[in-house]
This record gives sequence, C-alpha cells and structure tokens, in this order.
Amino acid sequence: MFIHRRDVQIQWGDCDPANIVYYPRYFEMFDDSTSILFEAAGVSKQDIIRRYGLVGIPMVDTRARFLIPSTHGDWIRIESRIESWRRSSFDVRHDVYKGAELAIEAFETRVLVGRDPDNPDKLKSAAVPPEIVARFEQA
Amino acid sequence: MFIHRRDVQIQWGDCDPANIVYYPRYFEMFDDSTSILFEAAGVSKQDIIRRYGLVGIPMVDTRARFLIPSTHGDWIRIESRIESWRRSSFDVRHDVYKGAELAIEAFETRVLVGRDPDNPDKLKSAAVPPEIVARFEQA
Amino acid sequence: MFIHRRDVQIQWGDCDPANIVYYPRYFEMFDDSTSILFEAAGVSKQDIIRRYGLVGIPMVDTRARFLIPSTHGDWIRIESRIESWRRSSFDVRHDVYKGAELAIEAFETRVLVGRDPDNPDKLKSAAVPPEIVARFEQA
Amino acid sequence: MFIHRRDVQIQWGDCDPANIVYYPRYFEMFDDSTSILFEAAGVSKQDIIRRYGLVGIPMVDTRARFLIPSTHGDWIRIESRIESWRRSSFDVRHDVYKGAELAIEAFETRVLVGRDPDNPDKLKSAAVPPEIVARFEQA
Repeated sequence: MFIHRRDVQIQWGDCDPANIVYYPRYFEMFDDSTSILFEAAGVSKQDIIRRYGLVGIPMVDTRARFLIPSTHGDWIRIESRIESWRRSSFDVRHDVYKGAELAIEAFETRVLVGRDPDNPDKLKSAAVPPEIVARFEQA
Repeated sequence: MFIHRRDVQIQWGDCDPANIVYYPRYFEMFDDSTSILFEAAGVSKQDIIRRYGLVGIPMVDTRARFLIPSTHGDWIRIESRIESWRRSSFDVRHDVYKGAELAIEAFETRVLVGRDPDNPDKLKSAAVPPEIVARFEQA
Repeated sequence: MFIHRRDVQIQWGDCDPANIVYYPRYFEMFDDSTSILFEAAGVSKQDIIRRYGLVGIPMVDTRARFLIPSTHGDWIRIESRIESWRRSSFDVRHDVYKGAELAIEAFETRVLVGRDPDNPDKLKSAAVPPEIVARFEQA
Repeated sequence: MFIHRRDVQIQWGDCDPANIVYYPRYFEMFDDSTSILFEAAGVSKQDIIRRYGLVGIPMVDTRARFLIPSTHGDWIRIESRIESWRRSSFDVRHDVYKGAELAIEAFETRVLVGRDPDNPDKLKSAAVPPEIVARFEQA
C-alpha cells in the first residue's frame, strides 16, 4: 500500500488561546495531505479536473481522534494512505506522529464528483477511473 | 434538553473551487456553535477561564457526515446540544439543516482542561463543575 | 453614501496564543463585510455571477491599521462603504469600532472580473455595470 | 540584509470559487513567513516567549498589492526580510514571486509586546532586545 509521509511545522496562527492547535486547522492539514498523496501517486488535483473532467473529491464522512496536543514550533509527521476504493468513493487514513507517539488518528470517506449533466450547478458522483487506482497500486 | 439554534449564511471565503463549502470551515462553525451554546446556557468561554480558572474545552474526538453540500449565499441552521456529561468530558451534537433537510450530522467529545499544576506548559483534565451542568439543565 | 453596519462577536478560533485576534481573520471578516455590503445594496455575489456572468471581485490592494486588539467574546462593529467607483475597479473602506473607539481602519481596492474569452483559465477585468453603481446610489 | 526565501505550494483549500487564492490565506502565509524568518535568524517565536518573557509580535499596519493570481498546484516563492528596526517595532517586507515575476508585494509593521505589569489582560509594547537585532545582522 502506498503511504505518503510529510513533516509539518505547527505555526502560530494554527494555535488558539489555550496555546494548542485549533482543531479545524488539522482538517486543513489533512485535506492538504490527501491532495499531496494523490500528487505523489501521479494524479494531481489538476489532473482530476483537467484530464478526467471532474470537479473534486469532497468529504462525505470524516472522524479524528486527538490523543496528544501540539503547539507552535512543534513538528508533526502526517502519514497518509488510501485504505479502500469503491465505485465512486474511497477511504483515506491519516496517522499523525509527534516523535514516536501517535498524536492523531483521522479517517475520511470521500467521493469523486463531476458536474451533473442535467444541472451544472449540482455535483454528481463519478466512477473512479481505473487508471487512478492503478497509479496508487504502482506507486 | 437545551438546544441552541442559529442561522449562518455561507460566505464566499468558506467555499472552494468546487463552489461548495471547504469542509474544515464547517468545523470552525461547529466550534463557534459549541461556544455559543455554552454562552446561551449562561457559561461563556470567558467564564470557564475567569470564574473557574480553566483553559478551555479542547476536542478529543469528532466526526461529521456531510449529506447535502452548500454554497455561498446559502443559509444553514445549526442545532447544537450537549448529549451527555461525564466527569471531565462531554458529548456535543450538531445537526445542520438546509431548509427542512438534514445537511450535516456532527458529533464531538470534548474535555474540560486546566493547566497541570506540576507543569504549566501542559494541560490536565478537570472535573466539570456541577454548576455548569446545572446551567444546562435549567436553560 | 450607503454605509452598512454589522456586529460581529469574536470567536475562540479567531484568536491566537497571545489571546487576541489572529489578524488574517480580520481580512476574512472584511471580505464577508464587502459581500454583505453588496447584498444589502441589492446585488449579491450570486447576482454578480449569474445575472452579469462575472466571476468575482478579487482584491488588488488592501491595507489595514490595527489600533485596538480584541479577544474572544468581544463584540465589534464593522462599518463598510464603497468610497469610489472606477471603470472596472472600486475602493471599499471598513471602520471597525469597539464600543465608541475606532479599533481598525481597512482599505480595499477590488476589481470586477470575468473569464478571459481567449483563455477561460484566466481572469479579465470587466466594466462595472451602471446598474450596480445605481443600486448603491439608491440604497 | 538577511533575506529568507521559501517555496510554498498553493493548496485546494487556499482557493475560492473563482479558482484563485482567497486573499486572507496570503496573510496567513506572510505571518508564517515572518515567524520562519525569525527562526532562521536564530530567534524562534518560542524564544521570544520563553527567553525574553514576551507575548508576541502582533500586527500594527499591513498592506499587500496583488499583481498576479495563483491557483491550487502552483508554487510561489516568498522572500521575506526585515527592512528596519525601531525601539519596539519593526518593518517586514514580503515579495512573492511566481517564476520570475513579482506576484505580490506585502509590507508589515509589527510591534514586540509583553503583558502589561499593571493589568496582565492587556498587552504593552516592549523594547526590542539588542540581541535580536544582532542575530539578524549576523545571519
């Protein structure tokens, strides 16, 4: 399974008056990590849009368990992987480490969407192109 | 059970290139809703800090299921309630309605924390003052 | 001159470890205020896109002077107005009051843009429709 | 003069429905760049707080001119430097390049602050320690 790891330094503006990361910032980091995971597998978000004519991979369901807090200046490692593919949706997992310790576990279910041909203001789920799955298998 | 409802208009900057809300913004709205729920019950975040000498109510575990997307200009209604209290933690639920339809279901487990007397850089869970629970029962 | 006033409560997540608003959050509030000013004048951002076929009103130049800090729980009043219109750009001013005192002065120059007909990936400035200016004069 | 350069990839969540960066995100990047500039000179934000007993370097006045838009996937280079020091305040400049072209010019005046000894809820400007200025001169 293809795993992408990246190190992120917590910044001042990520933190709240309790001097720890304001948790919505972690979801921004996880969204970035999913994009970077796709790019590392050879399918950037720009490819999803331009090559496949789709709109994006919006979130359907997400959960995060916060075990160890972090503050500005700290470095965390985010390990991201796709755990399973379905027809038009897939599951992503992010494990955040602070040193050797697991600091956060996060789970995402996302769906691949395009514009609804009957109403371009609406989004409609789209089958995951087999090429995209193959990229992850070969990465 | 005390339920707080508020109407929020989705703003341009809440949305991403797919023209729908970038989901981390919903977690910001839910964090605001939890603060506003406490304030409506008569215990503002400022009270938690000043009256009880605590630091905050950080997130331990959160999940959200996104059923219907929204875009800028849309109005959503966020209904927030505390579902259960434990010694130092509690569960919050947010139901988001778009018109009559349920658009998002979100769940939070938060913990009340103060500074650790042995190391003021660290946070330590604190028992929920019975007065706070009483405020919600009487609200 | 049409002036729009709105009251905003500073939230926990707007603040940083110094316990004051993290200043990029003010720019989010100002962007919201400009959208709400347009909506109050009868031209919502959705109108700009749907009725006039344009893309938005991106920022060209902005400045803010921060005179008095605020923290979570505080209420501020944002007073917004358009100071001048040019062919395709316009100037906005936001004065932020904390009680009777001026807390922030902010200035914006924005431009009305549509898609470039020669390259839809690019944006191109568009003349401000006289109807939009008239809405502000009559508001 | 010490100049710090860093390359930043624009992310999906930095962009708005016009498919360009939502400008408040640039101010977050500039705030991060100022922190990273200090850290590169050998004075991290953690040093400012722990070694010097201060609270932070809040913004007093900032301006940005946006010349070329960017979208997700793009890489920008942010060049940051301190242009001048005064008793308790200083000026920072950020030049953003997209390839060889200047995309954004930003200016900041910040002030070094500590807690007001007469009222710890208030902030008070503090003289810049000569050691900090020396670090930048030697960097």
